[in-house]
Amino acid sequence: MDLIRAGVIGTGYWGPNIIRNLADMRDAQLYAVCDRIPERLEHVQRRYPSAKTFTDYHQMLKDPALDAVAIATPVSTHYAIAKEALEAGKHVFVEKPLTDSTKRARVLTQLAKKKKRVLMVDHVFLYSAPVRKMKEVIDSGQIGDIYYFDSVRVNLGLFQKDVNVIWDLAPHDLAIMDYLIGARPLSVSATAVRHIKGSGKEDLAYITVRYPKQIIAHIHVNWLAPAKIRQILIGGAKRMIVYDDTNPSEKIKIYDKGINPVKSAFRQIDYRLGDMWAPNLDTGEALRRALGHFVDCIHHRRTPLTDGHAGTRVVKLLEMADRSARLHGKEISF
Amino acid sequence: MDLIRAGVIGTGYWGPNIIRNLADMRDAQLYAVCDRIPERLEHVQRRYPSAKTFTDYHQMLKDPALDAVAIATPVSTHYAIAKEALEAGKHVFVEKPLTDSTKRARVLTQLAKKKKRVLMVDHVFLYSAPVRKMKEVIDSGQIGDIYYFDSVRVNLGLFQKDVNVIWDLAPHDLAIMDYLIGARPLSVSATAVRHIKGSGKEDLAYITVRYPKQIIAHIHVNWLAPAKIRQILIGGAKRMIVYDDTNPSEKIKIYDKGINPVKSAFRQIDYRLGDMWAPNLDTGEALRRALGHFVDCIHHRRTPLTDGHAGTRVVKLLEMADRSARLHGKEISF
Amino acid sequence: MDLIRAGVIGTGYWGPNIIRNLADMRDAQLYAVCDRIPERLEHVQRRYPSAKTFTDYHQMLKDPALDAVAIATPVSTHYAIAKEALEAGKHVFVEKPLTDSTKRARVLTQLAKKKKRVLMVDHVFLYSAPVRKMKEVIDSGQIGDIYYFDSVRVNLGLFQKDVNVIWDLAPHDLAIMDYLIGARPLSVSATAVRHIKGSGKEDLAYITVRYPKQIIAHIHVNWLAPAKIRQILIGGAKRMIVYDDTNPSEKIKIYDKGINPVKSAFRQIDYRLGDMWAPNLDTGEALRRALGHFVDCIHHRRTPLTDGHAGTRVVKLLEMADRSARLHGKEISF
Amino acid sequence: MDLIRAGVIGTGYWGPNIIRNLADMRDAQLYAVCDRIPERLEHVQRRYPSAKTFTDYHQMLKDPALDAVAIATPVSTHYAIAKEALEAGKHVFVEKPLTDSTKRARVLTQLAKKKKRVLMVDHVFLYSAPVRKMKEVIDSGQIGDIYYFDSVRVNLGLFQKDVNVIWDLAPHDLAIMDYLIGARPLSVSATAVRHIKGSGKEDLAYITVRYPKQIIAHIHVNWLAPAKIRQILIGGAKRMIVYDDTNPSEKIKIYDKGINPVKSAFRQIDYRLGDMWAPNLDTGEALRRALGHFVDCIHHRRTPLTDGHAGTRVVKLLEMADRSARLHGKEISF
Repeated sequence: MDLIRAGVIGTGYWGPNIIRNLADMRDAQLYAVCDRIPERLEHVQRRYPSAKTFTDYHQMLKDPALDAVAIATPVSTHYAIAKEALEAGKHVFVEKPLTDSTKRARVLTQLAKKKKRVLMVDHVFLYSAPVRKMKEVIDSGQIGDIYYFDSVRVNLGLFQKDVNVIWDLAPHDLAIMDYLIGARPLSVSATAVRHIKGSGKEDLAYITVRYPKQIIAHIHVNWLAPAKIRQILIGGAKRMIVYDDTNPSEKIKIYDKGINPVKSAFRQIDYRLGDMWAPNLDTGEALRRALGHFVDCIHHRRTPLTDGHAGTRVVKLLEMADRSARLHGKEISF
Repeated sequence: MDLIRAGVIGTGYWGPNIIRNLADMRDAQLYAVCDRIPERLEHVQRRYPSAKTFTDYHQMLKDPALDAVAIATPVSTHYAIAKEALEAGKHVFVEKPLTDSTKRARVLTQLAKKKKRVLMVDHVFLYSAPVRKMKEVIDSGQIGDIYYFDSVRVNLGLFQKDVNVIWDLAPHDLAIMDYLIGARPLSVSATAVRHIKGSGKEDLAYITVRYPKQIIAHIHVNWLAPAKIRQILIGGAKRMIVYDDTNPSEKIKIYDKGINPVKSAFRQIDYRLGDMWAPNLDTGEALRRALGHFVDCIHHRRTPLTDGHAGTRVVKLLEMADRSARLHGKEISF
Repeated sequence: MDLIRAGVIGTGYWGPNIIRNLADMRDAQLYAVCDRIPERLEHVQRRYPSAKTFTDYHQMLKDPALDAVAIATPVSTHYAIAKEALEAGKHVFVEKPLTDSTKRARVLTQLAKKKKRVLMVDHVFLYSAPVRKMKEVIDSGQIGDIYYFDSVRVNLGLFQKDVNVIWDLAPHDLAIMDYLIGARPLSVSATAVRHIKGSGKEDLAYITVRYPKQIIAHIHVNWLAPAKIRQILIGGAKRMIVYDDTNPSEKIKIYDKGINPVKSAFRQIDYRLGDMWAPNLDTGEALRRALGHFVDCIHHRRTPLTDGHAGTRVVKLLEMADRSARLHGKEISF
Repeated sequence: MDLIRAGVIGTGYWGPNIIRNLADMRDAQLYAVCDRIPERLEHVQRRYPSAKTFTDYHQMLKDPALDAVAIATPVSTHYAIAKEALEAGKHVFVEKPLTDSTKRARVLTQLAKKKKRVLMVDHVFLYSAPVRKMKEVIDSGQIGDIYYFDSVRVNLGLFQKDVNVIWDLAPHDLAIMDYLIGARPLSVSATAVRHIKGSGKEDLAYITVRYPKQIIAHIHVNWLAPAKIRQILIGGAKRMIVYDDTNPSEKIKIYDKGINPVKSAFRQIDYRLGDMWAPNLDTGEALRRALGHFVDCIHHRRTPLTDGHAGTRVVKLLEMADRSARLHGKEISF
């Protein structure tokens, strides 16, 4: 089986992680790196002398030896680059969110199908051990019917210039929600606020997604939080899950419910938690697993878990949340 | 100064705590206790043999020696009991929320004024050390302009028969919010869901309150959560606060903001937290301080911090949240 | 079955907790309270008007109606009071440690036997839910052979006037150790240091107890610690336990061991933890259970779990630790 | 200024981290890598194609272009390799501990002096932000006189074949202790136990080091612990420090002491903690700073903070601890 020759476009925040993982993989090769800023490329060249470097991605995409590209550029550029890459016959791995509009996401999805190329969006948490474990536990029926999905993803953030906090952070939560609930949502509503004058972008948002059967999902994303909180609560009819991504050793806790009768003249009953179980989780980097899945899908002509359709679903939710926020939280139905 | 002779109506969940504190105070006396269930009164009598007991509160209120009553009965009964007590010339301490409607809250407030009696609602967190410390820190200007108030109060709850989770848990958060922000809100919206068939009451709700100057408050209350979370984040222009009520030793943390330039070819800037400061807090029970304040207000003819007006503001917010929830989260303006 | 008429001697730090629990019990009665300080008795009388009060315990012990006494006075007085009480035919509940010398502990133990009275030492943690759960888990064989018992009990302490930190804090750890390991120790060594000039008492100590089969126990007690740590680690051949008494919701965690092969060119193997399980624990106050056990033993003429022999074993260990500390940590064999 | 051409010997557990950091530095160059296992070298070559590779370190040391070596091999081999490297005129960076005997550590120290080469031992925690912050805080006088240093470093460990847990883990704690206390110890005692049959190495140890002025240091190292604990408590006359290395965001907490008079009939005084302050810490990898310091020392002909003398002090303490452990914890004076 041939090595996949992969190129990376964009070496800003996330690109270096893709580069490092590609360089370390056995069935792929870090073939080329592209960035508009020459100083960044110098650094890459020193670390990875065998990689070709480009300041113009059009040039890079013309290289017939290149099999695949990973796009880690600002969201507004995803569409044009991914489109050109697919048209040049390359397999494409795109940072989340897939594009800045549902329409464009659909165009890319169709194009990948037509060109028979792998199009994968980096919903990276879906390749992390905690999310995989939650999926396994939910699918096994241990949780029972899902009641709610509540996600908080807040920190003192890197302000993004081209997108607001919804487009920056919520793709993670929406992708996890979409994966774990596995149903079609009914409606979206959102509230978003901007506090920093002149920045022009909302820094805090609350998003509510309704599903059939009274399932409700709620997401709090925030660039102005004093502490890093990354916590998802999932309530079910039988058990409940707490996923705390900042806990170094026990990220997933699964709780039995319990009811303790209290023998007291004053109180009759006390609802309490039952046993808690924290499964051991694989270590290993989620991005590494994501890139491994991408390379596998290329080799075996498979559709990735986070294909164009998954990417489109998340972009659609982001678009609806943004629209609801502009309409003062009006509930927008699908 | 005479001892205040206080009676307690209702010995269910919270009443025993009021009884214990009154029995322990130096400037008040546990004079009488009323409950419809005789077995509960037996227990009280054994513990507090000097207290009179009643199964009928009308009887108790006729006792001319009684100075004040604490009402710890279901919400729907607050109005009738408090009204009768005020009319009988008693000072009144009522469990939160003050009443089940704004109109009734206003009637009680007016009646207390007319009768020159103290009417105090037990917004108990306003008498707790963490909330008092936050108020002090905010008023000192250390936080700067407030950007947001975000509260999560979830646990595996005691299902209430007469009220939903908004009326059960959110009074705490709305009272703290009202106290700390100290401004008039513009609008309320809320989403609430019920999951348990037949219970008929919403078990999970999200409430959003908007204030002038882009201040936003958001409250998550939930009876179906796997773990007890009681956390308030307050973001400000200069500093930020995390109040974690489940942390046994560091309930309040105040964070400086910081920006660290990162010397890396890849990343240009990294927003990070500055120093954190956890002030030492008084120990001592909040309810004890609340009851002490009530007795002080009676002795010195003062208006309590959590008077009828404060109680009315919270009931108004609860009513609006409930109404918004029935209208699918429609934003309701004041 | 008659109510046990119980008296409490000493209303300093721990006495009020005994008083409160006795007053609340159904099969015992708070019959009398004794303290040399009249102001303290006034407070008790206000709260518990039906209890007799004494400033002289000799007087109290003469009361023929008194069935049992709880002794919560300084350690140096335990022996004389307990002896007089047993001789007067009372059942005796003594605060830990039982006495200030092994010899005296043995005298009390013999006297109780001769007088056919219950003598129980308040090794209160043995009646707490976490320690009971650990005992159950160890006895079930789930842990396998015990390798070590490591306890840290440190805080910014109440300096005791009559005893050092070993006699003040270590009785808890030694009692838990004795209960859970359930074997005869071989030797004790200890290091103790005093830092505060003029206080005359050691404020920090490390105690090592060796058992057969390479079982080792180690205890760190400290009055000068910045934070409250109460943690016990128990290592076994199959599983391991962490007991963190400051964790409000998950005091006991039981870990499976695991070994994960790591697929990396660099590292061959990675020892990692397996699943973790945190059993739900009863709530309820340990002291309440201890007093309930005392009253049960009186009623049914049973020997308490923490009888004179258990109390003597702990005093013996304390004496040996103290002696080793004076000999620069010399190992002292039984 | 010329690039330092550095070689790394040993690519097992820690070597890859040294390789990665050297490859990333601007004033050093990853010139060569040596390992006896060819498969490991293949991996290195793929990742760092410009580095020379050797399976025989004697060959590598003969390369006149090589300026410096980092030795990351088993402890028993440190002496021979470091000696040969210094004799060949190379600067030497050695993993902790410096050697397996004090005598050998002194020989290397003298040899480095004679050859005018930098000899640095990788006491890596001394280059970490938390330890540097503690040193700064202690030196500023904020802590007052040090009372004690208590370190716990336990986890489910990688069993070492050539050394016991004292030689494996305690070098970290002893190096931090030596650096922060900055005084000459008086004596060492230790207890060590082995539990796993056939392994032949102690897996758990307690080490006590005494200093003048009643300063005491105590170290608990353990390969058989259920959870990873890395915690250092430092008690001082004025303030106290807790360093929890597993806390992702607040590794260093500095506590004021406080005494709160409690107004209660029962309790007279309550020692409590004062405010707590958690300083912001630099991020950045400790090993990177250590290697940067090594390269700086070479360039500017300076003596490193962790030079041969520092390395010798730690080896001396390890030797004494080992000897005391074999003598059942006998206190061994310097």
